[in-house]
Amino acid sequence: MYIKGVGMTKFGVEDRTTQEMAYEAALEALDDADMSIDDVNAVVVSNEDTRNNGERQRLAPSIIASIFKIKLPMIRVPAVCGGGGAAFWTALKLGYDNVLVVGAERLAATNTVRVTDDILMAADRVWEQSEGLIFPAQNALVAQQHMLKYGTTTDDFAMVALKNHENAYLNPKAGFYGKKVTLEDIKKSPVVASPLRLFDCSYNVNGAAACIITKDRTDVKVAGSALFTDRLPAFENKDMTTWDASVKAADMAYTQAGVSAKDIDFAEVHDAFTPVEIINYEDLGFCRKGEGAKMIREGVTKLDGRLPVNTSGGLKAKGHPISATGISQIYEIVKQMRNECGERQLKNNRRALAQNIGGAGATASVHVIERA
Amino acid sequence: MYIKGVGMTKFGVEDRTTQEMAYEAALEALDDADMSIDDVNAVVVSNEDTRNNGERQRLAPSIIASIFKIKLPMIRVPAVCGGGGAAFWTALKLGYDNVLVVGAERLAATNTVRVTDDILMAADRVWEQSEGLIFPAQNALVAQQHMLKYGTTTDDFAMVALKNHENAYLNPKAGFYGKKVTLEDIKKSPVVASPLRLFDCSYNVNGAAACIITKDRTDVKVAGSALFTDRLPAFENKDMTTWDASVKAADMAYTQAGVSAKDIDFAEVHDAFTPVEIINYEDLGFCRKGEGAKMIREGVTKLDGRLPVNTSGGLKAKGHPISATGISQIYEIVKQMRNECGERQLKNNRRALAQNIGGAGATASVHVIERA
Repeated sequence: MYIKGVGMTKFGVEDRTTQEMAYEAALEALDDADMSIDDVNAVVVSNEDTRNNGERQRLAPSIIASIFKIKLPMIRVPAVCGGGGAAFWTALKLGYDNVLVVGAERLAATNTVRVTDDILMAADRVWEQSEGLIFPAQNALVAQQHMLKYGTTTDDFAMVALKNHENAYLNPKAGFYGKKVTLEDIKKSPVVASPLRLFDCSYNVNGAAACIITKDRTDVKVAGSALFTDRLPAFENKDMTTWDASVKAADMAYTQAGVSAKDIDFAEVHDAFTPVEIINYEDLGFCRKGEGAKMIREGVTKLDGRLPVNTSGGLKAKGHPISATGISQIYEIVKQMRNECGERQLKNNRRALAQNIGGAGATASVHVIERA
Repeated sequence: MYIKGVGMTKFGVEDRTTQEMAYEAALEALDDADMSIDDVNAVVVSNEDTRNNGERQRLAPSIIASIFKIKLPMIRVPAVCGGGGAAFWTALKLGYDNVLVVGAERLAATNTVRVTDDILMAADRVWEQSEGLIFPAQNALVAQQHMLKYGTTTDDFAMVALKNHENAYLNPKAGFYGKKVTLEDIKKSPVVASPLRLFDCSYNVNGAAACIITKDRTDVKVAGSALFTDRLPAFENKDMTTWDASVKAADMAYTQAGVSAKDIDFAEVHDAFTPVEIINYEDLGFCRKGEGAKMIREGVTKLDGRLPVNTSGGLKAKGHPISATGISQIYEIVKQMRNECGERQLKNNRRALAQNIGGAGATASVHVIERA
C-alpha cells in the first residue's frame, strides 16, 4: 500500500474539540491527496472515548460520518497511546482502494487530573491502577532498571529531551515550536517520579492527524507494517528494559520490507518518556542491547547525526495526543520524504521507521516506509 | 473465509469478570475448532472499556494476551452494541489464516445506573446525552414514528417479545432459558419509555462469545460481510423508521453472497428493542417497508415459520452483553447449521443472516453465512 496524503493540526494545549481537530486533519489529508471525501472507500478512526475531557463519545466514527455527511465502512481502533499506529496497521490490511485514517484526542482538557485517571484505565487494574502506578511511575521503574543494568544516567535522559526540543523548535506543528528549552531547564525541572523529571515526560496536548492510504502507486510506499500485543504489567517481564511487542513488530516489519535496522535513514519513535526512546533504539535494532545511551551521547540520533530520530520533536516536544500520535509520525515521515520540512529537513530520507506503543509496552506497531 | 469453531458463555446476570468470560468463550471456540491457541495468527477483541462496571480496562487485547500467554497481532474494535459484528467484519478482512474473534462484556454490574450512563456515551453528546435521551427513549421515538406511519401497535411489539422469549426458553445459553414469560407478563410490564415496556427492552447481561475464522474450507462459510457507519442522532434521519447503515450493509452482503433476502432461511437480528426487530425485517428486505408487523402477526418469523428470526432468543431474551452480542449471533447460526440446537433446531438451515447494530442505527454490520 502507498500513502497518498497527510494532514495534521498544530499540536498544543489550545482548547479544541476532537471533532473540529479530526475534521481539520482529515480535510488537509484529502487536500494533500488531491482527493474528495467521495473517493474514500473506508475510514479507520482512533480515539479514546474519554469521559473526563467533557466529550463522552464512544462512537467517534459516527462523528466523522456527521462532519463529512458520509455513510461508509467505518470502524474505530483504539489502543491508548498506540492507537494511531494500530489504526494505520488495520487500515493497511482492510483491502480497500483508499482508506482515510484519522486519530484525534482532546487530552489537554480543563481537568487534567481526571483525564490522567481516564488514561490510567490502560494499566493493569489490580497491580498498577490500584497501587497508583500511573504511567510516569511505571516508566520510572523501567528507567531505574536500565540505569542499574547498563549504567544509563539521568544526563542521558536529559540529552534525549534536549534533542527532541531542539527539533520541535523547528517544527511549526509542534506544541513546543519556537520555544527554547535549555539543558538547564530540563535538569532543573521538578521530579515527577524518580528518576523522571517533568521534561522527561511527553507533552499532553490536543491534536489530530490523518492520512490517506491507497493501492495506487504514489511517491511514498509502506514497505513493512507489523503490530504485536503483549500482556499488561511491565514489571512481569523477565527483563524490564526490553519490550517484546516492539522487538517482534520491528523484526516482522523489517522482514516484510526486506531490510534491516541499518537500512533505516531516519525514524519517529515512541518517546513517551525519555528513557523509552533509549530503550527503543535497542529494541528496534539501531544498536545493541544496553548501548542506547551511547547513541544519544554520540549525537547519532540528532538532526545532523547518522540516524536522526524524532525530527518532529517526538511525543516529548511535538506533543502526545494519544490516538493521534501514531499517525502524526507518518505525517512527519511523508513530509521529510517530500523535502517539505524547512529547517529540520533531512538529506538522507529514503527509508524511515515509525514506532508507536500503547501502555508500557503492552502493544506496539512498527512501520517501514520508503520513497517509491 | 470460513468459520471453524464457536464458543459462548451462558448469558446472564451472574457476577463474572470480562476476563474469565472471554477466556471461557475463547477456549470453547478453540476446542470446537480442534485447535490450540498456537494455531491462531491474530486476535480481534470487542469490549467497551467500561469504567463503572468496576473493571476500568482500555486494553482488553492485553488481557487476552495475559490469559493465553501469547504475543500476537491483536487489536480492539469496539462499536458499543454493534462491536461484536464490527470485530467479526474486521477479522474477516485482516488476511490472516486463523483469527480468534472475542467479544465480552460485564454489563450487569452492581451499579446498573452508572453502567447505563457509561453506555449512553454512545449517543450524541449535545442532543441526546444532555437531554437524557437514553437508548430506550431514543428507540421509543422511533417506535412512535413506526406506529404513526404504518399502524404498528404495541401488541405487535409484545408478539416480538413473546416469540423471542419462547425461543430463549429452549436455549440453555440464554439468560431466560427455561423461564416462562407469558403475553400477559409482557403487556403488563412497567412502561420504560412509552410505548416501550420493560419486556420490549433487551436484557442487560454479562457474557462472552468467540469464534475462529479461517481460510481453510470448513462446514460453514461467510458468503457476504458488510459494515456501514452513519451519523449519530437517529432523529436527524429523514425517515426515522429506517436505518440506512443497516440497509446498505444488507444490500452489500447480499450482493457479495450473490443472493437476495428471499434466499435467507433464518436470521439473528438486532432486537435491542422489540420495534427494532420489526424495522429490521423491513431494512433487511424480508418484507416491504411498513409490513414488518404483518410478519410477526402471521407468525412468519416464529420457530416454525417460513423465516425464523432470533431462534437464540435474541438480545431480548438470550441477553445483550453489548460487544459479545454480534459474535453470539454467529454462534447460534453455526450451531443451527450443525443441527446442534435441540428443541429449537430448524430444518431449513442452509443460509442465514446476522445483523448487529451500534447506537440507534449509527453503525450496522450484516453477514450472510452458508452451509458449505
